[in-house]
Amino acid sequence: MATTKLWTDEEVAGDPRVKAVFDDIRATRQSDFVNNFWRALANQPALLERTWSSIKKVMIEPGTLDPLTKELIYIAVSTVNSCSYCVHSHTAAARAKGLTEEQHGEFLAVVAMASETNALANALQIPVDPEFNVG
Amino acid sequence: MATTKLWTDEEVAGDPRVKAVFDDIRATRQSDFVNNFWRALANQPALLERTWSSIKKVMIEPGTLDPLTKELIYIAVSTVNSCSYCVHSHTAAARAKGLTEEQHGEFLAVVAMASETNALANALQIPVDPEFNVG
Amino acid sequence: MATTKLWTDEEVAGDPRVKAVFDDIRATRQSDFVNNFWRALANQPALLERTWSSIKKVMIEPGTLDPLTKELIYIAVSTVNSCSYCVHSHTAAARAKGLTEEQHGEFLAVVAMASETNALANALQIPVDPEFNVG
Amino acid sequence: MATTKLWTDEEVAGDPRVKAVFDDIRATRQSDFVNNFWRALANQPALLERTWSSIKKVMIEPGTLDPLTKELIYIAVSTVNSCSYCVHSHTAAARAKGLTEEQHGEFLAVVAMASETNALANALQIPVDPEFNVG
Amino acid sequence: MATTKLWTDEEVAGDPRVKAVFDDIRATRQSDFVNNFWRALANQPALLERTWSSIKKVMIEPGTLDPLTKELIYIAVSTVNSCSYCVHSHTAAARAKGLTEEQHGEFLAVVAMASETNALANALQIPVDPEFNVG
Amino acid sequence: MATTKLWTDEEVAGDPRVKAVFDDIRATRQSDFVNNFWRALANQPALLERTWSSIKKVMIEPGTLDPLTKELIYIAVSTVNSCSYCVHSHTAAARAKGLTEEQHGEFLAVVAMASETNALANALQIPVDPEFNVG
Repeated sequence: MATTKLWTDEEVAGDPRVKAVFDDIRATRQSDFVNNFWRALANQPALLERTWSSIKKVMIEPGTLDPLTKELIYIAVSTVNSCSYCVHSHTAAARAKGLTEEQHGEFLAVVAMASETNALANALQIPVDPEFNVG
Repeated sequence: MATTKLWTDEEVAGDPRVKAVFDDIRATRQSDFVNNFWRALANQPALLERTWSSIKKVMIEPGTLDPLTKELIYIAVSTVNSCSYCVHSHTAAARAKGLTEEQHGEFLAVVAMASETNALANALQIPVDPEFNVG
Repeated sequence: MATTKLWTDEEVAGDPRVKAVFDDIRATRQSDFVNNFWRALANQPALLERTWSSIKKVMIEPGTLDPLTKELIYIAVSTVNSCSYCVHSHTAAARAKGLTEEQHGEFLAVVAMASETNALANALQIPVDPEFNVG
Repeated sequence: MATTKLWTDEEVAGDPRVKAVFDDIRATRQSDFVNNFWRALANQPALLERTWSSIKKVMIEPGTLDPLTKELIYIAVSTVNSCSYCVHSHTAAARAKGLTEEQHGEFLAVVAMASETNALANALQIPVDPEFNVG
Repeated sequence: MATTKLWTDEEVAGDPRVKAVFDDIRATRQSDFVNNFWRALANQPALLERTWSSIKKVMIEPGTLDPLTKELIYIAVSTVNSCSYCVHSHTAAARAKGLTEEQHGEFLAVVAMASETNALANALQIPVDPEFNVG
Repeated sequence: MATTKLWTDEEVAGDPRVKAVFDDIRATRQSDFVNNFWRALANQPALLERTWSSIKKVMIEPGTLDPLTKELIYIAVSTVNSCSYCVHSHTAAARAKGLTEEQHGEFLAVVAMASETNALANALQIPVDPEFNVG
């Protein structure tokens, strides 16, 4: 099921703008596999280009957070947003970047704990302590 | 505003079960400051004990994820759950654990990027690639 | 702060359609107090009428679930949707219907537990057991 | 998978109250196809009647917003609520009302952009400018 | 699809720590059936133990809220969190605890009504009436 | 309250990278007023630049959806994400673009209706009709 068409490699080859992004995905990741997310976005070339450009900058360019930490933050967001596709793809990405079973267990415990205390704080509508204010 | 009473130190002192948890919070954190979250939970001693016990195990006991990474995962979850209290308290905690402005910027970029692609994947209802399946 | 005007009693008195709903709210609840929710909806008479009519049918008409149980379900939904207004107003309503501190504590524990296991099930993308299927 | 039974046309024919709603759905939409949403609600005749009556008033009766704009707002809400069923059914409805691929692309870009800035504003807990207050 | 392995009974039998939890689940529920949620958590023994221990305390130990009410609160939370697995498993649990079709209809009406008014209150950013404040 | 500092005009003037974005915001909107969102992002120049560049492209560049429709989609997303800041700022933007009280009422009705049926579809886990599949 999907609400849009997924582009095959043949269709991608016939559209230079889409092909340029797919070529860059393959080159950047050093893999021939291009997952369905990009095949769905191919229907919207401008969105495809902008999204891939942001992903490269945010997730791939080196910075002060290591790549695995970024993936864990990504999965945390995707879990709460209940994005099945994103949880699957980024858990696979985290494993490919070395996530161990033990780290996954600790990650799950933090996500569960945060969800639990979020519910408590929202149900009790606890006022923010002035000590936490920065603005 | 709140939907429950916040306990003062005097009230805490009068309830041995609540006092024991507050004493342990102060001893564990080596600080006299106890934030409103615990003052609200004090109305429910069993819940207070269980929540503090889990927080200690999940967030404080050493493991394979470092303390700052855990805080970032916590803030990511709290942001998507729109828990104002939790975002404030854990951003303060992350700063106390050394979060730099540059790391905060990269964290924000990942949370924003994940939210954006979650929306795209959910709007397009993209089918999960079989390559991502583990179960 | 608000994104719309809140109607005063004087303004309500000047609009027969809005006044009819406010009169019915006061008569049904046997109280002169009309909370801000209705004062904000007064800008949209058709929406005001439809929403009050549904609330009366769903929350006030007797049925097989008792009024307090309905309030707890309402607060649970409002907590997860992070609706500060609704959590405040329906926790007050639940208290007015007899919610004890002990029941509130058990309610909070269930909401927290569900949030925690929701996060785990969504992070692990656990397939539904065929035993749970009804459709 | 489902948590409730889906009514077949034969079952619908045997229940006058449910049949009346199904007849009206078919007459209003000028189509024999009745989708699973209504077949699931058929288990709860009062809820079925109220929901269909609201949908007719809100989505079908002419007003100041055009039908396609209403569908886009509907899909936006359903996307963030991660309602797979609703995203599928209302994207199909939007296409039936003339949504072009280009409009879909712009819609997706707005939904993604809003999700991104929502995450940033919630993570930073930015105070609302007094200029935006109306209430 | 899943992002983690589901343990078979053979695998469970080979790990004493996991086996102890599974034995207790079977004894407590007086049923040989152990659902996928626990088979997925088996990869993380500490998390498995803590989660089962909390579930027993929160959902099974007698208290002031009856077991069916707790299940309805659980399903309400799971619905808003869009946790397909949890909605399925707890609706089945509620049915096993005696949920009638009529009660289910009223539950659905309350969940729908709360979702509707949550959206209105959040879109209008209605200020909380001081009458609702407890803190 | 906020979790980050809000930049004053004096501070902005002292940082050429931030100043360039603020100048462009003022020029593009033909207004001297710069709202807190940008003053908070000023702490992260790279994120500030990328976010403003996307907003200009997605929300301001002419396309096939009119500016008011885009604002309504934006508010719908922000409402469900419970982003108080974003609901306030984009409702103000929609009003500035001509949103009438009557259109606002219809918008609210659609957002409420969608939230209601999302809850029903998620609680009933209704299977997607094959007729809605495009992928």
